[in-house]
Amino acid sequence: MLPKIAQVIGIRKFELKFNIEEPNGPYVKTKIPGPKSIQLINDLSKIQRTSVNRPALGYFPGADWMYKLNNALLQMAPIGLNHVTTMMCGSCSNENALKSIFIRYQSKKRGECIDFDDKEKTTCLLNMPPGSPDLSILSFKGGFHGRTIGILSTTHSKYIHKIDIPAFDWPVAPFPQYRYPLDENKKENKKEDEFCLQQVEHLIEEYENKGKPVAGIIVEPIQAEGGDNHASKEFFQQLQRIAKKYDCAYLIDEVQTGGGATGKMWCHEHFDLDYSPDVVTFSKKMQCAGYYLKPEYLPKQPYRIFNTWMGDPSKIILLEEIIKIIKRDSLLENVKITGKVLMNGLFEFEKQYSGLVKAVRGLGTFISFDLPTTSKRDEVIALLKTKGILSGGCGDLSIRLRPALTFQPKHANIFLEKLKNVLDEI
Amino acid sequence: MLPKIAQVIGIRKFELKFNIEEPNGPYVKTKIPGPKSIQLINDLSKIQRTSVNRPALGYFPGADWMYKLNNALLQMAPIGLNHVTTMMCGSCSNENALKSIFIRYQSKKRGECIDFDDKEKTTCLLNMPPGSPDLSILSFKGGFHGRTIGILSTTHSKYIHKIDIPAFDWPVAPFPQYRYPLDENKKENKKEDEFCLQQVEHLIEEYENKGKPVAGIIVEPIQAEGGDNHASKEFFQQLQRIAKKYDCAYLIDEVQTGGGATGKMWCHEHFDLDYSPDVVTFSKKMQCAGYYLKPEYLPKQPYRIFNTWMGDPSKIILLEEIIKIIKRDSLLENVKITGKVLMNGLFEFEKQYSGLVKAVRGLGTFISFDLPTTSKRDEVIALLKTKGILSGGCGDLSIRLRPALTFQPKHANIFLEKLKNVLDEI
Repeated sequence: MLPKIAQVIGIRKFELKFNIEEPNGPYVKTKIPGPKSIQLINDLSKIQRTSVNRPALGYFPGADWMYKLNNALLQMAPIGLNHVTTMMCGSCSNENALKSIFIRYQSKKRGECIDFDDKEKTTCLLNMPPGSPDLSILSFKGGFHGRTIGILSTTHSKYIHKIDIPAFDWPVAPFPQYRYPLDENKKENKKEDEFCLQQVEHLIEEYENKGKPVAGIIVEPIQAEGGDNHASKEFFQQLQRIAKKYDCAYLIDEVQTGGGATGKMWCHEHFDLDYSPDVVTFSKKMQCAGYYLKPEYLPKQPYRIFNTWMGDPSKIILLEEIIKIIKRDSLLENVKITGKVLMNGLFEFEKQYSGLVKAVRGLGTFISFDLPTTSKRDEVIALLKTKGILSGGCGDLSIRLRPALTFQPKHANIFLEKLKNVLDEI
Repeated sequence: MLPKIAQVIGIRKFELKFNIEEPNGPYVKTKIPGPKSIQLINDLSKIQRTSVNRPALGYFPGADWMYKLNNALLQMAPIGLNHVTTMMCGSCSNENALKSIFIRYQSKKRGECIDFDDKEKTTCLLNMPPGSPDLSILSFKGGFHGRTIGILSTTHSKYIHKIDIPAFDWPVAPFPQYRYPLDENKKENKKEDEFCLQQVEHLIEEYENKGKPVAGIIVEPIQAEGGDNHASKEFFQQLQRIAKKYDCAYLIDEVQTGGGATGKMWCHEHFDLDYSPDVVTFSKKMQCAGYYLKPEYLPKQPYRIFNTWMGDPSKIILLEEIIKIIKRDSLLENVKITGKVLMNGLFEFEKQYSGLVKAVRGLGTFISFDLPTTSKRDEVIALLKTKGILSGGCGDLSIRLRPALTFQPKHANIFLEKLKNVLDEI
């Protein structure tokens, strides 16, 4: 009785059998009528099968999982990173990425000996060192990396995210706060970079001395939630050199920036780093979540980075189709062109509405600008809404633009026109 | 150009519009041919729409989300708990449940004043008290509540999950270790309960004194990952009374036990508690994840329990259908009947193969038994596999059974016959 429901309700073992008997076939494409319609996920039975037979990927990945990883996630991997671990969301990806960093840090200390000693095995079960070592992660003021309790100790954008929740004593460095326009403030901004980088080194040494060595540095390529704070490529290059000097992992959190909106698939590719980062996390636009990592960050023992779901195959189907459309329609190129239209328009407003529109900044269409006060900012967002445009606030003064990759110059012009109307009104 | 892809790639705003224009309609049922086939999720276009238009539920839940929460999750809520927060996975559910507990603990301390003081606002951004207070959660040896870094401080089942990862100094109490058969060891097991409960009180006082007050107690109704360790209903009743006495939240983690396998939807319903628990977390068999909670655990301010996805509507469609089948086919009743067949068979083996099969224990079909050594246990699992039966190890000595809710007495008899063959072989 009820042979199929067994796969839904309980016994994971049957899923394996099911997958072997009925592996997901290749895409069957059917045309949807209409001149400009999109052939988006047309094999409905495939979606249905993948959605209903929810696998525990760590145990029973299914016959085609490796193919899917290769076809979607690894195809889009940042240069130099050809390993990937899948997870369910951005926070879990960052949480597990930190775990991989701690594991690698301790493994390196152990050297050739890959086994643990008995004291480590017993103390970790009681949350005590040496099994649960007093390691730390350096993060930045204004940074946002998620809200689960571990990674929350690296998030510092708004108090409402953190208040009342216990935290680890981990170091928090200043992130560059530039003066705009950048062209007119090169010297000050260079000094700002130097100051922040000095603080990073200072904190790494301070935490080493107080017995909480820094195992890794986590940083967003653009601090998004914290107010679209940009830093120079030199800052990120130098930060990586500091990480190398102190043997800390260099984790770039691309949960918000990854997926093409900056004009490159990964924002950190704008920075011309000496080496690829050690770990890059992703979620959101990528539909599925997880992290790319260097082989030395793969644990040597099984079940150290593991959970029930280990991601969701129904999401990678979406990513596969998105990647096809990105390529077919040259969407990264579109983002660059549209981004220029937006930036030029906003630079123009910065002159025309001097004192009102400030600090225009962006990469691709990942763009933001400031208003003089929070209330003015909120007013502009509200007025834009009355004209059919949804924009978002970030930080205290900023409006951030996050259009789809399909946003074209003609759409940018509509936005600029409406924004001009709003600026004229206030 | 490309109006639909916009919903997939980036702008969440358009999803709202889409949802309003095309709200998910009611189920359209079509018969799948075949005498015993199941009408499982028949409206493929509905699945497709829900899967493709992945919403940020906290902002844009869609027109039918409230209906779905009522129809699926709240319909199955434990008695006394009629609020629910959805998440993506079991670990995230436990992480956020702890956050709700910490928030409620501090809110209660603040009393009528619902605003935070400036020192709290600034210190929390630097991970320091009073904004990030030094609160703790009491958990149990052998417990498993997930692997993200926060909740990992309450997980104590196997060293491989924890070693090398920093942890909070939170109290860890002993969980009852009973002698079996229970009938012959009542006195000793009662003493074991008393000892463990004394330790709980002792630890709550110790951590209060060392400045890390216990805001909540987290416990599984059956310690699953840790070896299917059961405790008496009196233990759970008394534990709740201790929680009340010290004003700690009582969180029952039903991620593994929830969903019907114990013969009730929620395992803690077997315990005849004085009151419902304060928080109950779920995932796995429930397809969607999250936690039920009492109203006093809802934060008074928005954005404190929040993230991008806040769960996944495509999973609640599965749950809706599963609930229908559970009711249509009286599957909880089936679990009770099948569980008895399994238990009686295993009790018989405990006599017949004395010294080999031990400590038979279970609720519904959530059943386990011990072998005398880990190697014997692993041998039995391996031999069962050669006979077409996949079972799982847990703890050091146990084999755990986790059949689907559709597992019937006739299937139980096949299992018992095969197990008998294996026991005869070794």
